[in-house]
Amino acid sequence: MNGNNLDALFRPLSVAVIGASSKELSIGNVIIKNLQHYGFKGPVYPINPKVDEIRGLKAYPSIGDVPHPVDLVHIVIPPPFVPEQVENCGKKGVKAIIINTAGFKEMGAEGQALEDDFLARAKKYGIRIFGPNCQGAINSDPEFRSYCNFTFTYPKPGYISVVAQSGGVGAVIMQAIYDMDIGLRMYSSNGNASDVSIPEIIRYYGNDEQTRVIVLYVESLSDPKQFMEIAKEVTAKKPILAMTAGTTDKGAEASRSHIGGLAGSISMEVVFKKSGILFFSSQEDLCNAAEAFAHQPIPKGNKVGIITNTGGPSVIAIDELVRNGLEIPRLSEKAKATLKETMFESASIANPLDVVATAGAPQFKSAFEVMMNEKEVDSVYVNFVTPPFVDNESVAREFAAAGKKFDKPIVCNYMTDKKKWEATTKILKEGAIPCFDFAETAAKALASLVRYQKIRAVPKGSIPDFSGIDAEKVKSIIAKAKAAKRGMLCASGVYTTLESYGIPVAGWAVVGSAAEAVQAAKKLGYPLVVKADAEQIVHKSDVGGVVLNISSDKELEAVVTKMKDSFAVDDLKFFIQQQKPKGQELIVGAKKEEGLGHLIMFGLGGIFVEVFRDVVFNIAPLTDTEAKAMPDAIKAAVLLDDFRGKKGVDKAKIADIILRLSQLVTDHPDIKEFDINPILATPEGICAVDARIIL
Amino acid sequence: MNGNNLDALFRPLSVAVIGASSKELSIGNVIIKNLQHYGFKGPVYPINPKVDEIRGLKAYPSIGDVPHPVDLVHIVIPPPFVPEQVENCGKKGVKAIIINTAGFKEMGAEGQALEDDFLARAKKYGIRIFGPNCQGAINSDPEFRSYCNFTFTYPKPGYISVVAQSGGVGAVIMQAIYDMDIGLRMYSSNGNASDVSIPEIIRYYGNDEQTRVIVLYVESLSDPKQFMEIAKEVTAKKPILAMTAGTTDKGAEASRSHIGGLAGSISMEVVFKKSGILFFSSQEDLCNAAEAFAHQPIPKGNKVGIITNTGGPSVIAIDELVRNGLEIPRLSEKAKATLKETMFESASIANPLDVVATAGAPQFKSAFEVMMNEKEVDSVYVNFVTPPFVDNESVAREFAAAGKKFDKPIVCNYMTDKKKWEATTKILKEGAIPCFDFAETAAKALASLVRYQKIRAVPKGSIPDFSGIDAEKVKSIIAKAKAAKRGMLCASGVYTTLESYGIPVAGWAVVGSAAEAVQAAKKLGYPLVVKADAEQIVHKSDVGGVVLNISSDKELEAVVTKMKDSFAVDDLKFFIQQQKPKGQELIVGAKKEEGLGHLIMFGLGGIFVEVFRDVVFNIAPLTDTEAKAMPDAIKAAVLLDDFRGKKGVDKAKIADIILRLSQLVTDHPDIKEFDINPILATPEGICAVDARIIL
Repeated sequence: MNGNNLDALFRPLSVAVIGASSKELSIGNVIIKNLQHYGFKGPVYPINPKVDEIRGLKAYPSIGDVPHPVDLVHIVIPPPFVPEQVENCGKKGVKAIIINTAGFKEMGAEGQALEDDFLARAKKYGIRIFGPNCQGAINSDPEFRSYCNFTFTYPKPGYISVVAQSGGVGAVIMQAIYDMDIGLRMYSSNGNASDVSIPEIIRYYGNDEQTRVIVLYVESLSDPKQFMEIAKEVTAKKPILAMTAGTTDKGAEASRSHIGGLAGSISMEVVFKKSGILFFSSQEDLCNAAEAFAHQPIPKGNKVGIITNTGGPSVIAIDELVRNGLEIPRLSEKAKATLKETMFESASIANPLDVVATAGAPQFKSAFEVMMNEKEVDSVYVNFVTPPFVDNESVAREFAAAGKKFDKPIVCNYMTDKKKWEATTKILKEGAIPCFDFAETAAKALASLVRYQKIRAVPKGSIPDFSGIDAEKVKSIIAKAKAAKRGMLCASGVYTTLESYGIPVAGWAVVGSAAEAVQAAKKLGYPLVVKADAEQIVHKSDVGGVVLNISSDKELEAVVTKMKDSFAVDDLKFFIQQQKPKGQELIVGAKKEEGLGHLIMFGLGGIFVEVFRDVVFNIAPLTDTEAKAMPDAIKAAVLLDDFRGKKGVDKAKIADIILRLSQLVTDHPDIKEFDINPILATPEGICAVDARIIL
Repeated sequence: MNGNNLDALFRPLSVAVIGASSKELSIGNVIIKNLQHYGFKGPVYPINPKVDEIRGLKAYPSIGDVPHPVDLVHIVIPPPFVPEQVENCGKKGVKAIIINTAGFKEMGAEGQALEDDFLARAKKYGIRIFGPNCQGAINSDPEFRSYCNFTFTYPKPGYISVVAQSGGVGAVIMQAIYDMDIGLRMYSSNGNASDVSIPEIIRYYGNDEQTRVIVLYVESLSDPKQFMEIAKEVTAKKPILAMTAGTTDKGAEASRSHIGGLAGSISMEVVFKKSGILFFSSQEDLCNAAEAFAHQPIPKGNKVGIITNTGGPSVIAIDELVRNGLEIPRLSEKAKATLKETMFESASIANPLDVVATAGAPQFKSAFEVMMNEKEVDSVYVNFVTPPFVDNESVAREFAAAGKKFDKPIVCNYMTDKKKWEATTKILKEGAIPCFDFAETAAKALASLVRYQKIRAVPKGSIPDFSGIDAEKVKSIIAKAKAAKRGMLCASGVYTTLESYGIPVAGWAVVGSAAEAVQAAKKLGYPLVVKADAEQIVHKSDVGGVVLNISSDKELEAVVTKMKDSFAVDDLKFFIQQQKPKGQELIVGAKKEEGLGHLIMFGLGGIFVEVFRDVVFNIAPLTDTEAKAMPDAIKAAVLLDDFRGKKGVDKAKIADIILRLSQLVTDHPDIKEFDINPILATPEGICAVDARIIL
């Protein structure tokens, strides 16, 4: 046990149910039944003023009437009566309350008022509130057996702890783990989360020694920064496997800003990634991975040795393994020589190693020994069908022995009728061999172990401290714009900001007249671009406010003079910029997300972002490792390298720009959106040629 | 019963096992045990010269000694003895033989000789051979109960028939269907397929009235054309759901030719598509879809009404449904009005309709009635968790009633402990409601019904008969090239071929001298491209054999003169072509695949094909519908339409070019590869500017 303040919730010594009921089909009855059937180690006190006894237990009129201390209370009565009962619990000295009742803030102002009321009372007495509008919490620890939940799955003890924002999804995951016949450590679903939060629960699971892997389902985060902070702390100790939903919201796509439109639906995935959490996109994959994490070690690398006693499923497995980035190395000559001695003649001595259907324990034993001893093999994947003409129990014992003897993970696609081969199944189960019905699911479970290893192998890096940055200048630019109530920085503001943070830009000047323009051109050199620079002119290109390819003083004078005539704007300025030769267009952007900080985006410009959505995100502040990974993470990464005779661009410089933008927006949280689009990259150099900053 | 000649295999009246054994762990024992335990309706004759009795049955020394007729024989003895036994079976009048024994053509020449031997003998007697190196065949029909297979799953009768090239995958599918507690009609896995082929089996299942859906696993096709022909015939009657494996072969990618490299790994998928077969990429998805097809009608469209009694799982379901192209329409005002009357106050009256966890039979009944009666709803998806405080059996009866009353499909994500809610589960099962543990899997199963509906809704189209095609000219060009042992057509050959089939090409001429070039330029107009045209000059661009942007007679003369000097080649010619303004680069290609005909490819040129692999395939000859679908099927299809101010190109014309190429390669099967790369498409027109033809 540890000193974390959620003990009353997960390790209660006694439980009372306010709203306990004799009616079979009621929550107030089901919770007591669950505590009884699951074998809760402490006393259970039904609270109901109308009856003396519920489910064979003495009922008390009120919580104050219970003659013993009460750690944890369920409240299942209608909302209006909840605050008073919380007050009573406070007087009684209750430590935590699970409010199962729904109808609070999710129902509007009236419900919110009730929620505020009971929260204030709970705070007064130092009571932790779980819920409202929630299922509850379960601990399978034989010392507690606390089933404080109205669901129906009775998990056996294990090493997986689950927390789900949605009770429905939590129940599905709990049932799936149960159906897989593996154990669960703790479970919780906290509904409205008015007090006890998901990060707190994750931290609690993180501190629980018996929890080897945490499974998380979350749809939204009230405090993403706190979540990331705690998640990082926990993932340093043990894996968190997570899933979210609501990722197809077409609303987000409709947004005009690139980074806005693209980021909306995927920011949760980015939060997971930044926190070191393994992301899943299906409940089933998540549960299967949890089984592998609960029972097998993490492999040292991505190379897998395959043992199979049937052909087709191993072909399917290879497809899935390769798709997930695993490698299937060749066997060493030594390994082959050994296998030639030990395998049947019809066996196929290679990787995959087909031991053939008639293989028995000696063949499997040797197969495991050889694969496990191969230097080039980090994990072992087995396709094991139970032929009716083989002693499968002996074979299963070889799985268990290999799992015990070696510390490389084994994952098995176990193809059988589990009832007919009950003894075989039991041996595998007791040997902690993760077994899956399908080659694909087994391969994906193994791949998730490898994915985790990869995450762990990447050094976190550090946030660089750039010298020569002029943060004060940017601060004053933003302050001036805000004072003038401008939502968007003017061109000179934007480019000065970029330059102040050492982000290379095409040479530029702001001038007021044709004569000044010609003067500036001397320094900048031709060709040049001229843009009319006034807030009033919005769609500059459409109204003739942008002219490209100016190549002489004469042209420049003519353009500026014409613009001056066309735009009847006071104080009209002209933004003049070097026109750069064509190169690979890049986009680097930042967008502020409430409660999260800035999302940083990188991608290629034009159709790459518009058609293929080929962009990657991370959350500021970025470390050097994170920034460096971004250019390589896009699908079209190959276009940044030497490709079909075209020389590559300086990816280190791109990473540097990403890092500088990250520091820029972190230093200046007033910036809502920052798009550098495009940055032109050529083998000769990289510089920003257009950008905008929204406050 | 029907007159198809596989009756002896799937509907045997008697079975003998040559190689029957008393040893429990042997195939010769397991097959007899399976026939006994599964309740085979006919007599079983163990054949073994050394014993009198096996598993309580009288054993005979040889097949000839059996005093009754024998329909079907298993042979499980070693390969060298097989031919003789086939001969004996012939003499006995056996109709079909399943050769389970392995060690024939898969082991080399010796095995092949044995296989040829037994096949010749079988042919002599008109015996059909199933296998060798195979599992066998099962029919769950209560009239037969023929379990002629050495696997261990005993399916209950149903409507799904399975055929798998790999016995391992077949067994997994059979077991999965069994674990889902649904029925199976027939099963077979034919291993080496020396005689009875997968297309024959598909046709047999197609003619079986009780088979509603066919599940197919296949890794390779010995005769793809025959397969497609038969599959088309069958899919016109009932759905075939199929899967393949070996799709990540990196070898195929390494191929140099675009269409070769890209097509290799996916041609099976193209074959499925062309045959009207529904393609799956995981065994589990395949089995789940089979359940839906076996028990539910095909929806009329892609609009789904969602009923849920829990929040999170419906969010996950929506993600998956939307990802799969389903739409979730708004409810009509009438529907909402009804639901406001019938639902609990806390329900959410919309689509998805959240009836809330406390909803009972009346709420579900109304939910079904309303959804089923919505004009805009084609199918109903339900998230149903079994709350312990609800009468779930009554709720289940409403599922069954709705399924019976309406002919829109229902698919359910049923979240429960199936043992605890056994009665509820049984009601759903008997009501033929497909139930899945996860929201994702249920959504995917429903999506597969919609996918099938979409395939059926597309008119097959017809293969157009182009007028004005000069096939004879192309025939003679190819004949000449072949006579000269040239593997590649020369430029004039290629462009004449294109023109002979009405495929637009940039104007061109072949000339021998500078003077002729200038003469030709008068007709073609500038700018022009000149290419040295001689077989000996291979990498033309690298050695100065291609000059672009020639814009005057003078330049043209200079270029031709210089080339004449540089290339000391006899009979040097010059290929002169109009240089077209830049446009959208397209690729249309054809590649001959052995036994299949020509694969036709369409895609965008450059990085679209090289980086994003954004190409689509079909098999020649194409129908107009198929050709028309290709430009719309690429990921970057939007680039062909009006896009960001750029005018779109003529997609009908692209389809026309695809069709003409299809006819061209179909008319001239000597063509191995035909790449038109690029075709330049602008809003003004489309024409081929480079092409090559390999014989």
